[in-house]
Amino acid sequence: MNEIRKPTTGDVTQGQLPASEKIYVPGKLLGNVGVPMRQIHVHESANEPPLTVYDTSGIYTDPAAEINVEAGLPRIREGWIIARGDTEEYTARHVKPEDNGNVGEDKLVPEFPNLAKPRRAKAGVKSISQLAYARQGIITPEMEYIAIRENILREVTPEEAAKLKAEAERWGANIPDVMTPEFVRDEVARGRAIIPNNVNHPETEPMIIGRNFLVKINANIGNSAVTSSVVDEVDKMVWAIRWGADTVMDLSTGRNIHNIREWIIRNSPVPIGTVPIYQALEKVERAEDLTWEIYRDTLIEQCEQGVDYFTIHAGIRLRHIHLTADRVTGIVSRGGSIISQWCLAHHKESFLYEKFEDICDIMAAYDVTYSLGDGFRPGSGADANDAAQFAELETLGELTKVGWEKDCQVMIEGPGHVPMHKIKHNMEKQLEICGEAPFYTLGPLVTDIAPGYDHITSGIGAAMIGWYGTAMLCYVTPKEHLGLPDRNDVKEGVITYKIAAHAADLAKGHPGAAARDDALSRARFQFRWEDQFNLALDPDRARDFHDQTMPKEAHKTAHFCSMCGPKFCAMEITNLVRDYAKDGMEEMSKKFKDEGAELYKESYKDDAKTADASGDD
Amino acid sequence: MNEIRKPTTGDVTQGQLPASEKIYVPGKLLGNVGVPMRQIHVHESANEPPLTVYDTSGIYTDPAAEINVEAGLPRIREGWIIARGDTEEYTARHVKPEDNGNVGEDKLVPEFPNLAKPRRAKAGVKSISQLAYARQGIITPEMEYIAIRENILREVTPEEAAKLKAEAERWGANIPDVMTPEFVRDEVARGRAIIPNNVNHPETEPMIIGRNFLVKINANIGNSAVTSSVVDEVDKMVWAIRWGADTVMDLSTGRNIHNIREWIIRNSPVPIGTVPIYQALEKVERAEDLTWEIYRDTLIEQCEQGVDYFTIHAGIRLRHIHLTADRVTGIVSRGGSIISQWCLAHHKESFLYEKFEDICDIMAAYDVTYSLGDGFRPGSGADANDAAQFAELETLGELTKVGWEKDCQVMIEGPGHVPMHKIKHNMEKQLEICGEAPFYTLGPLVTDIAPGYDHITSGIGAAMIGWYGTAMLCYVTPKEHLGLPDRNDVKEGVITYKIAAHAADLAKGHPGAAARDDALSRARFQFRWEDQFNLALDPDRARDFHDQTMPKEAHKTAHFCSMCGPKFCAMEITNLVRDYAKDGMEEMSKKFKDEGAELYKESYKDDAKTADASGDD
Repeated sequence: MNEIRKPTTGDVTQGQLPASEKIYVPGKLLGNVGVPMRQIHVHESANEPPLTVYDTSGIYTDPAAEINVEAGLPRIREGWIIARGDTEEYTARHVKPEDNGNVGEDKLVPEFPNLAKPRRAKAGVKSISQLAYARQGIITPEMEYIAIRENILREVTPEEAAKLKAEAERWGANIPDVMTPEFVRDEVARGRAIIPNNVNHPETEPMIIGRNFLVKINANIGNSAVTSSVVDEVDKMVWAIRWGADTVMDLSTGRNIHNIREWIIRNSPVPIGTVPIYQALEKVERAEDLTWEIYRDTLIEQCEQGVDYFTIHAGIRLRHIHLTADRVTGIVSRGGSIISQWCLAHHKESFLYEKFEDICDIMAAYDVTYSLGDGFRPGSGADANDAAQFAELETLGELTKVGWEKDCQVMIEGPGHVPMHKIKHNMEKQLEICGEAPFYTLGPLVTDIAPGYDHITSGIGAAMIGWYGTAMLCYVTPKEHLGLPDRNDVKEGVITYKIAAHAADLAKGHPGAAARDDALSRARFQFRWEDQFNLALDPDRARDFHDQTMPKEAHKTAHFCSMCGPKFCAMEITNLVRDYAKDGMEEMSKKFKDEGAELYKESYKDDAKTADASGDD
Repeated sequence: MNEIRKPTTGDVTQGQLPASEKIYVPGKLLGNVGVPMRQIHVHESANEPPLTVYDTSGIYTDPAAEINVEAGLPRIREGWIIARGDTEEYTARHVKPEDNGNVGEDKLVPEFPNLAKPRRAKAGVKSISQLAYARQGIITPEMEYIAIRENILREVTPEEAAKLKAEAERWGANIPDVMTPEFVRDEVARGRAIIPNNVNHPETEPMIIGRNFLVKINANIGNSAVTSSVVDEVDKMVWAIRWGADTVMDLSTGRNIHNIREWIIRNSPVPIGTVPIYQALEKVERAEDLTWEIYRDTLIEQCEQGVDYFTIHAGIRLRHIHLTADRVTGIVSRGGSIISQWCLAHHKESFLYEKFEDICDIMAAYDVTYSLGDGFRPGSGADANDAAQFAELETLGELTKVGWEKDCQVMIEGPGHVPMHKIKHNMEKQLEICGEAPFYTLGPLVTDIAPGYDHITSGIGAAMIGWYGTAMLCYVTPKEHLGLPDRNDVKEGVITYKIAAHAADLAKGHPGAAARDDALSRARFQFRWEDQFNLALDPDRARDFHDQTMPKEAHKTAHFCSMCGPKFCAMEITNLVRDYAKDGMEEMSKKFKDEGAELYKESYKDDAKTADASGDD
């Protein structure tokens, strides 16, 4: 179960999705870097241009790209970072045995080869964060990249945009008709959006998290003390982004954490998040043995590797811990309980809270983004929106302002388990208390009674809170509460959350978001089965499900499906309605009676023939 | 694929769910009939009574019951029906070859043996519907049964009920603290709730559909011209109710419709719905060949068999058909398009609309409930809430009043495909236009881009509209748009919709609804793994998922899981917090430091030993 073999290029899924083509859109500030998008081609009978969709999958889906997992991805942002002239290379902190859990040589995951030197802000530079640049009025290449990316070549007329805005309910979001680099800069400057991009992760394809942009999703991966394999984790990352994960959190615990993370980061085109306290805990015997020094050293370790955002549970205050005592499910956040245990044992405020400004200085020197953790998030519907949860949120609001003063990018983590009628209040409070800093929620799960289906219980809450304003949704897999997700679970979780995020974009009237729905609906209505599969979030499953009852190639062009059968099809009738509406009622009534039903007879005959031949009528 | 073997008792799933016991609660009007409930027993360490849950599964989960598929279920309501003295037995309509699609002897599904004579209202009796009785002030045994059933032995104090009401958002629903037979009667009398219970389906365990009651779900089954087996369909029905389907619609098309339906009804303890126009269409060559006489004869045929509710697309008006011409997906309702085709071909109003009062007289004579079909429901987000859809809804509002005048029970079908921001408007309009008659919606699907996952795209919309006031949610399976659901799809669809319905109950603050969430959350927090599985909507999957990473029996009592591993567990810490909050801070701080972490060390040691032994550390 615990495999330490070095990952190779053959271990990760490659190749384009069906009927798709990778394109790169150039910018003005991007040098030779293009913004990747995926174009899905449809059948020529549709007479439609290809549909362009947001593409998180990296070069793994580019047949023209050279992929080499042992070399890592191209360092596309490196030129931009160097050109800014505010960072310098230096000799990395020495990797210590405890960074990998003091694992013996025979069980050590091999180091990633040929590591580049890390980079950090030059002495005297307060912050190299995108927020710092944005506040100085600088539009970075990252910002231009994001503006291009978020537009997805959208073609929305001002009239259409106005209609969308009128029909939609945006709950205060302010989504422009067209994204511009200046809009991106302005949103980042206001703290309403973040660009998680550690200078030591120059392999990232820049992306933005903010409620005036497309709703994003995060996928959690990571080994544990019980089960672990570096090959599996790298593959899970590539697999997760193939299906649409915008960021990936490596929540590894147990051994080999350092080396596994290095392999993940070097091969990840999406931002990587971690919870540094998890690794810090592995370096000591007990939670109460944790110190600021160990934690600080772990932060530096991960900053140098290129982690893009850190979950930091600095909102836990000693005085609030007792508020969890009467809960049905107490403290369920792993980080939150580690810190609580520490606070109780020492009877003082945590070093996360006490040293928050020092942490800011570290984050600012690498441009690592805060994901302020919700250590007191509710673990059951019964505990939702309680005093402990909102007390912590108040502290997170204070810390947001401290982070911003230090030119650090900040987002806020949110629940958790929340019944539907209590979801909206979470969003409203977060916006108010945290000055519109992006909200990043786990689900929420709207009921506790369905372990094994918590991607669904949480997908419901995620869609709703995404609509209300959450900027990024942390996925939940079917294994939640029961075990570590495998590859299938990762895909199920990612697709479910793509559904939730997209449903939120639609409900917010995000310009261009409905293009894919409309394209797929047209394909459905015109019986372009191949196009229906190819335009789907999961073309493989759509095709497989169809083929289970209608496997024959001829059925791919059939003007019917297995639900109604060949004799009569609901959707086919509308073409007749259209003719009818066009040509006048009297005349068509006659014509239709004479000829109309023949349409079906033809395909019925064909099917009957096939059925007879195979003897399965 | 097309099997015509007679179903036998061995073909259907039997036996109780884990740790569960079937109980029957007596009433005053019920004679020797008890109201079935399922009690889930928890581990003695919990010191909790068993949790009582609503039970749709019939006697198939009662180990004490004699199950005989070839004899059908006990006719529990027969005594009540006869005692009312307003119905009479008569000789059934002769079954015609076209009732089974003129299928040859060698392909004919065997008839259900020893059929009882059908029953109908005596001459001169206007209506034998539960609505008619309710309006006369009569509390029927069915109403008492329902009141007992809806309470699920709930134990909610007035204080708790008041708190629920204060916290919840009920959108105008009026849910009593305790259900009474009189409340049931009153809701039925007002037309706000229906009890679908054909006198010729006396096997049903009465249930109610209305927004002041628990939200219900329907599962569709049925063979098609492409694939068909009576054994499969009977098993799907039993399987669907095992997981919680409150009603089942038999949407069979193709051949053997009559005989398959008979097998389903005779073995179904839940109301069965159909779309009679589907069978009528099988009796003619083309939609335009349909006549009132053929349709009427089909209605009688199905009334005599015991179908409990009919979807009737009487809301389609000739003058509104052209409104669908500019839609992205035209008409997608199968029934809607059949009727539209007929209207266009004849250039006149459908016989469903023209003969609506005659249909009422038939429905009233058997107590079959109207499910007024939404033939113009949107088939894509783009078509949601359009003129065609709402024009039909207005007609359905008119017809509701006609039905009520005839003492017929009425519910209204709703969409379909609707993005989140347009869902609520559907509910509001339906309540207003249809005088609060129960709404019965298909999903709605909140996006069109995920074929293969439409149980999820629709589960999101279903949870929301259930919260807003929909009384019954029609499930959508993962196969939607792609093929006919198999057994696994039926289960996935039912569980997804149980989640949606329950989430809605929670958000409406339905008294007692949170009991299961709380029981499961307590089990989770106390590491009672077996109880977590047993309390889950799907105990089998919960157990299976857990065992994939932690298969050993010892792990069922472990105070950790595969996510965090043995060294540290988030939830375990709260017990320490509780002690801490109780015993004072200073003292506990010391005690905790001395002893606290030892808790984990013990289990860690155990696990390390096991891991070493199996060589997989």
